[in-house]
Amino acid sequence: MKIVVDAFGGDNAPLQVIKGAVMAKKEYGIDIILTGSKKEIVRCAEENKISLIDLEIYDAQDVISMEDDPTDILKQKSNSSMAVAFKLVADGVADAFVSAGSTGAVVVGGSLIVKRLKGIKRAALGTVLPTKNGNFMLMDVGANADCRPEMLAQFGIMASAYLKHVAGIENPGIGLLNIGTEETKGDELRLKSFKLLKSSPINFIGNVEARELTEDVCDACITDGFNGNIALKLYEGVSLSIMSMFRNVFKQNLKTKIAASVLMPGLMKLKAKFDYSEVGGAPLLGLRKPVIKAHGSSNAVAIKNAIRQAKLFVENDVTAAIINGLAEFEKVEQNEI
Amino acid sequence: MKIVVDAFGGDNAPLQVIKGAVMAKKEYGIDIILTGSKKEIVRCAEENKISLIDLEIYDAQDVISMEDDPTDILKQKSNSSMAVAFKLVADGVADAFVSAGSTGAVVVGGSLIVKRLKGIKRAALGTVLPTKNGNFMLMDVGANADCRPEMLAQFGIMASAYLKHVAGIENPGIGLLNIGTEETKGDELRLKSFKLLKSSPINFIGNVEARELTEDVCDACITDGFNGNIALKLYEGVSLSIMSMFRNVFKQNLKTKIAASVLMPGLMKLKAKFDYSEVGGAPLLGLRKPVIKAHGSSNAVAIKNAIRQAKLFVENDVTAAIINGLAEFEKVEQNEI
Repeated sequence: MKIVVDAFGGDNAPLQVIKGAVMAKKEYGIDIILTGSKKEIVRCAEENKISLIDLEIYDAQDVISMEDDPTDILKQKSNSSMAVAFKLVADGVADAFVSAGSTGAVVVGGSLIVKRLKGIKRAALGTVLPTKNGNFMLMDVGANADCRPEMLAQFGIMASAYLKHVAGIENPGIGLLNIGTEETKGDELRLKSFKLLKSSPINFIGNVEARELTEDVCDACITDGFNGNIALKLYEGVSLSIMSMFRNVFKQNLKTKIAASVLMPGLMKLKAKFDYSEVGGAPLLGLRKPVIKAHGSSNAVAIKNAIRQAKLFVENDVTAAIINGLAEFEKVEQNEI
Repeated sequence: MKIVVDAFGGDNAPLQVIKGAVMAKKEYGIDIILTGSKKEIVRCAEENKISLIDLEIYDAQDVISMEDDPTDILKQKSNSSMAVAFKLVADGVADAFVSAGSTGAVVVGGSLIVKRLKGIKRAALGTVLPTKNGNFMLMDVGANADCRPEMLAQFGIMASAYLKHVAGIENPGIGLLNIGTEETKGDELRLKSFKLLKSSPINFIGNVEARELTEDVCDACITDGFNGNIALKLYEGVSLSIMSMFRNVFKQNLKTKIAASVLMPGLMKLKAKFDYSEVGGAPLLGLRKPVIKAHGSSNAVAIKNAIRQAKLFVENDVTAAIINGLAEFEKVEQNEI
């Protein structure tokens, strides 16, 4: 198995990406290709005394930045580290793709270079968020601002296949993010999506309210990309902001600092819960090959974990599972007509 | 001035509502009508040794519950405490309405009994959420699941008038909740709403990202009722859930309990930040008369604060300010055609 990693994606590239790739290579024994300026990768590795072992490097002079228009990946930035990585997957040189770079560019490159599976209306991005006792996947978190009901139904099928085969959840519970639990709640999009999800070949548990999301009510929560992106950023924003408010209470004076130090072991565990590096990357589902978007602020461990997700994606053939789920759904739909 | 209060709305009715009404009457020197079973109100007051002073009571045998369909307020529950309160406002007996009862019923009763202002497409519910150094109003938080761009523009005008005249903010900054700050970001609804808000007679500060909401970036954030309701409940759910995670760290053993007790003064301040009773109620804007929806779990202080909001709403004639803002906006729109 060969996984291509965009060495120049993310806030901590290339150092942390190189480190993560080397860790993954050693730990999982898979082949890894790095894309990006060969000169800079070699120099960075030497400066940091990292042995590149037998990682392959494909040279790419450009880098697509957060400021670039995502569609630049097809045009001015078609020789960027990310574009070259996508082409290696599209051409079958690599089996899966990992990048911590621009989300928009990953969505455009994934959809238009790797391309969508036949029958899939839109690729969707799923991200894992912490709950009281574990986590859940929120999907779509921003690949598609405007969604139709058929798209949300497909997201449910894709999330179910991914969680079963990558996260190892036997019969994942899939919910629809809504403003009430009753079938009659929500806007037009939700009302129609509910009906489709109900008839799809997954364990659809019905509507899920935003307030319950932290309470381990479902394994994946389906929504449109606009609402999902707002929910994701609010989840992050509110938790970071409350954490920082607590920190201010702890730092108030010597007495509070000493008190906080007693609480530190528990607080560190809490912090780890909200640590992206533990969770890994977000899969962009519905494509012909596995594409994993790692968090922009990924460190080496986060990159390694994203590579592990890509490996499980390939090994357990999530793509085939999605195709099967889709075929089954279409059969049900046809029978109903 | 006379404000009508639904004595049987909310989880803590009628006791906390009666207490709050008595407090408001004493503190603000305004006239208050309570609606609901006169017998039960009098008995509850006697049992709790509350002097009803000269509060008026309008008898209403029924109560609209959270389980009732909101439209029942027009039919089976037209003699409920909430319906009677709405009619007193519609008939001009009272100047403003306060209830901690079913949000859905408040929206239906407000829109169809009190009725919308001429030209207002939909009434919208605005709620105040805490930020690092203050708070902001999120609107609409659920009165309208499906929204059109003209509606979002009107929400902006209404929120601006309310914040100026009730919260005393000179030139409120109004943002549009979106998945990016650039004008080109978002779904169809956002793209069109941005243009309308930009040409409206308010201090429109552009798109606001969900991650920034806790950072005091705007005085009001405008969105559709579906997305706003999800954002509101996520805000509540994530903060409550993190608070409870911290509590578990504090309660772990004797040492951590002692440490937590040292931090208590700071932690209590933090808790107060998220306390609904301090903030008061959510205005339902765009109606002929002021309607305030208090939080379902309101205690006496929260009810008193909601009555205070209603009082400021009447005193500072927010309704006239909304009418003026709307007229100004229509002038701009016509000039552009």
